[in-house]
Amino acid sequence: VRLMLSGQDLPRVFKIAIIKHGLSAAKLLVESGLNPVLLEARNRVGGRTYTVQNKETKWVDLGGAYIGPTQNRILRIAKQYGVKTYKVNEEESLVHYVKGKSYPFKGPFPPMWNPLAYLDYNSLWRTMDKMGMEIPKEAPWRAPHAEEWDKMTMQQLFDKICWTSAARRFATLFVNVNVTSEPHEVSALWFLWYVKQCGGTMRIFSTTNGGQERKFAGGANQISEAMARELGDRVKLGRAVYSIDQTGDLVEVRTVNEELYKAKYVILAIPPGLNLKIHFNPELPPLRNQLIHRVPMGSVIKCMVYYKENFWRKKGYCGSMVIEEDEAPIGLTLDDTKPDGSVPAIMGFILARKSRKLNVVNHFRKRRICEIYACVLGTEDALNPVHYEEKNWCEEEYSGGCYTAYFPPGIMTQYGRVLREPVGRLYFAGTETATEWSGYMEGAVQAGERASREILCAMGKLHASQIWQSEPESLDVPARPFVTTFWERNLPSVGGLFKFMGVSSFLALATAAGVVAYKKGLLPLSQPVL
Amino acid sequence: VRLMLSGQDLPRVFKIAIIKHGLSAAKLLVESGLNPVLLEARNRVGGRTYTVQNKETKWVDLGGAYIGPTQNRILRIAKQYGVKTYKVNEEESLVHYVKGKSYPFKGPFPPMWNPLAYLDYNSLWRTMDKMGMEIPKEAPWRAPHAEEWDKMTMQQLFDKICWTSAARRFATLFVNVNVTSEPHEVSALWFLWYVKQCGGTMRIFSTTNGGQERKFAGGANQISEAMARELGDRVKLGRAVYSIDQTGDLVEVRTVNEELYKAKYVILAIPPGLNLKIHFNPELPPLRNQLIHRVPMGSVIKCMVYYKENFWRKKGYCGSMVIEEDEAPIGLTLDDTKPDGSVPAIMGFILARKSRKLNVVNHFRKRRICEIYACVLGTEDALNPVHYEEKNWCEEEYSGGCYTAYFPPGIMTQYGRVLREPVGRLYFAGTETATEWSGYMEGAVQAGERASREILCAMGKLHASQIWQSEPESLDVPARPFVTTFWERNLPSVGGLFKFMGVSSFLALATAAGVVAYKKGLLPLSQPVL
Repeated sequence: VRLMLSGQDLPRVFKIAIIKHGLSAAKLLVESGLNPVLLEARNRVGGRTYTVQNKETKWVDLGGAYIGPTQNRILRIAKQYGVKTYKVNEEESLVHYVKGKSYPFKGPFPPMWNPLAYLDYNSLWRTMDKMGMEIPKEAPWRAPHAEEWDKMTMQQLFDKICWTSAARRFATLFVNVNVTSEPHEVSALWFLWYVKQCGGTMRIFSTTNGGQERKFAGGANQISEAMARELGDRVKLGRAVYSIDQTGDLVEVRTVNEELYKAKYVILAIPPGLNLKIHFNPELPPLRNQLIHRVPMGSVIKCMVYYKENFWRKKGYCGSMVIEEDEAPIGLTLDDTKPDGSVPAIMGFILARKSRKLNVVNHFRKRRICEIYACVLGTEDALNPVHYEEKNWCEEEYSGGCYTAYFPPGIMTQYGRVLREPVGRLYFAGTETATEWSGYMEGAVQAGERASREILCAMGKLHASQIWQSEPESLDVPARPFVTTFWERNLPSVGGLFKFMGVSSFLALATAAGVVAYKKGLLPLSQPVL
Repeated sequence: VRLMLSGQDLPRVFKIAIIKHGLSAAKLLVESGLNPVLLEARNRVGGRTYTVQNKETKWVDLGGAYIGPTQNRILRIAKQYGVKTYKVNEEESLVHYVKGKSYPFKGPFPPMWNPLAYLDYNSLWRTMDKMGMEIPKEAPWRAPHAEEWDKMTMQQLFDKICWTSAARRFATLFVNVNVTSEPHEVSALWFLWYVKQCGGTMRIFSTTNGGQERKFAGGANQISEAMARELGDRVKLGRAVYSIDQTGDLVEVRTVNEELYKAKYVILAIPPGLNLKIHFNPELPPLRNQLIHRVPMGSVIKCMVYYKENFWRKKGYCGSMVIEEDEAPIGLTLDDTKPDGSVPAIMGFILARKSRKLNVVNHFRKRRICEIYACVLGTEDALNPVHYEEKNWCEEEYSGGCYTAYFPPGIMTQYGRVLREPVGRLYFAGTETATEWSGYMEGAVQAGERASREILCAMGKLHASQIWQSEPESLDVPARPFVTTFWERNLPSVGGLFKFMGVSSFLALATAAGVVAYKKGLLPLSQPVL
């Protein structure tokens, strides 16, 4: 066996090489008259989006799928390629399953009936959003309380601000669902930043008017595929990069299939942790060399169960389930039926700790998922699926996990500032480097376009002030503001209530004592009549 | 430019390939009659040990250097090659520098004079060692409180058990010094395990009778070099591995310098995070694929300042300084003078947060280090070094940091069990996989020998019960037990004291009130005399 170049005698020389799924970066560069090449590690484009077509499902998004208002960049690109969106079904009731019981509800969050839990819950969202307002989305390490909040895990913050187990339990699910990790694993500063740069607690968690409002008809991967078609043979599949050498006039990029590419500039459009797949010459600067060991990807298995009939809608359920139950594999579901009502299906996420437990005994997954759906929806119909699809993102070498990277405590303030700082002729994209909807398809587009403009600027084709650009709002998917009620804004927290009750009880008691004392003539307030 | 094989027409076929610094693994295999090849990424052997020779220093250990009692495996190998040890100078007083003042002391830990701080401090060590006793060193995830302790950072544990800022401050330094990371970055379960598997708080932190008792005369790298000499041309330098393919009859290993090696078995003797430098076919199992993104290396810059004279000994100081001062770059120093008294020098560590801050403005380092030494030792002699050596381990691509990997909260219980679980014909060594002195040279030897025996077992040459072997105690460097006094074992913690004082004050008060009441005849205990 001899190592061979795969039929290539000459290295490719390009202006710009883009490593892995940097399609939106490449697109912008081509539109600017440049000729980049895109090296994709996998044998497909799309990265953490992955649409599969088969006769049972027509098509199914095994990876990133949801988009919503304020995600204007990805909506713009989708529109350019004629990819339509449709609304995820939320007509009927959602269900909140807690302590073995199902509670139908409407609106973004399950309601709390216990008045104390309600106050606690209300103050939880309010506090997270208020703290988020202090955090600059482009530089969370500059927040006034950055050091203090970064030393805390979200678990510690919840222990501080939540008084009821109901709120604490839901808060855990909120972290699990949004960042596929556990509250004790993530920095409070990072998580509060994450929620903030998605537009706050309501925007990130909502289906209607939020991050999960819509899907792309035909699957999310169509956008990457359309871009790849347009880029033509500039896109090279199966080219995992293992070395980048910046010591010469051109940057030399070597791939596992033994090709050599040369370019003036390189964009790494991969999660920061996957920079480690590459051997660098010269070595990366110390902070970046350490950052990339410190930002692991979340853990999620995406599971679709297919049924003959859409039995949940008949029972008045839309298919959204919020499941708080330690033994349940799934934490959140959404209806995944096609927009025309065909191929009835429920999408569910196995999140964080649960994905690791179920990584080991994976043949049980389908059965256990159907069982919990039967419990939550109150019908044995859920036990008889006609088809099952799943994707365990924890096993993907070239993702490392999904949806996105998280920052453990202490990392954002110490290493955050080098996240997208260029290293020589190396520029950094990937959704983790975004400042709006980082972690989402939207963030990937923002980052790719920004990195491309950094290179255009380095080439003198663009002024530095043009690198960061805001995006006009999509006309098709407008955002409505979230209105909070007077009570939501002004009701006390449980702590506040207790303090208030404490003070008022004290005042009441003191007054009562005073009145008694006065009546008994024990006080010298009025001169005693002798 | 064409990609070429570096003069090699045939791949090397070997029984075992050992990737990177697995010298002790290779040595044991050769002794067992096998013929391994060792692929070393760097152009030198030794990994995180690194001895440099020059006329100013004679020799200097820029990496791992210290050994001590109970590290019997590395002492055994050193002895085989005739490498001698010598004691780090601890004749004169150590100094504890806190709040701008120097306090000379003797013994492993600086004493506390404030009685409350003393109780707190005493209970801190006692509590950490007691918790450690619950943790199985070979399986920390099986500790009775594993889940609870793993969800906590060490910072949280300190906040719980420390009542005084003196104890909390020193506890922070204790984490910084031992694992080159911050208390809020590391899992309490992991850190308590780490201290335990080094023999407890006294053993890990002590110079005399502890982990820093000795150095190797001539430098730590001599051992790796002697092993490499013995292994001859089985050791290949400059062979960073970028791909491992297990799909064929033999495992195929490809290097950045474009060679192909084939072997029946492979040992990866690298930190878990550096597994990421390798593209695997097939992909690693999901838990291992995620583990390797979750265990970053610590942060340290090792700095040696050389002086014309050993002025500190003349002032009655041995050269050990324990420095608690936010603005000081250095946290801990040891005398680094040669055993014959020549080349007077002080070794100091820039640890964790401080190394990241000083990563940015590195030209200030030497000056600032001398300034703090002048403060602590109370003499301007420290301001006039004759030479300076430093090594920033954060910049090393093939270490990722030093001394060792740390586990952020939540990782040990979720991923710990796959740390050294073989993947097909891939076996895992490296000090991070050890169960005694993991993080040290000793752990590297234990791990390398254990992984080699796993392969011997897989080949049918060894019974499974022989894989893990204990090591007889070194005769030259015997361990003495640490004796604790009655008071150290039995004095209350500050919390305990307060509880005791609370109860006893209440009893005293109640008794006093009773006596008064009795004397005033208010109690019906005795019949009032009418």
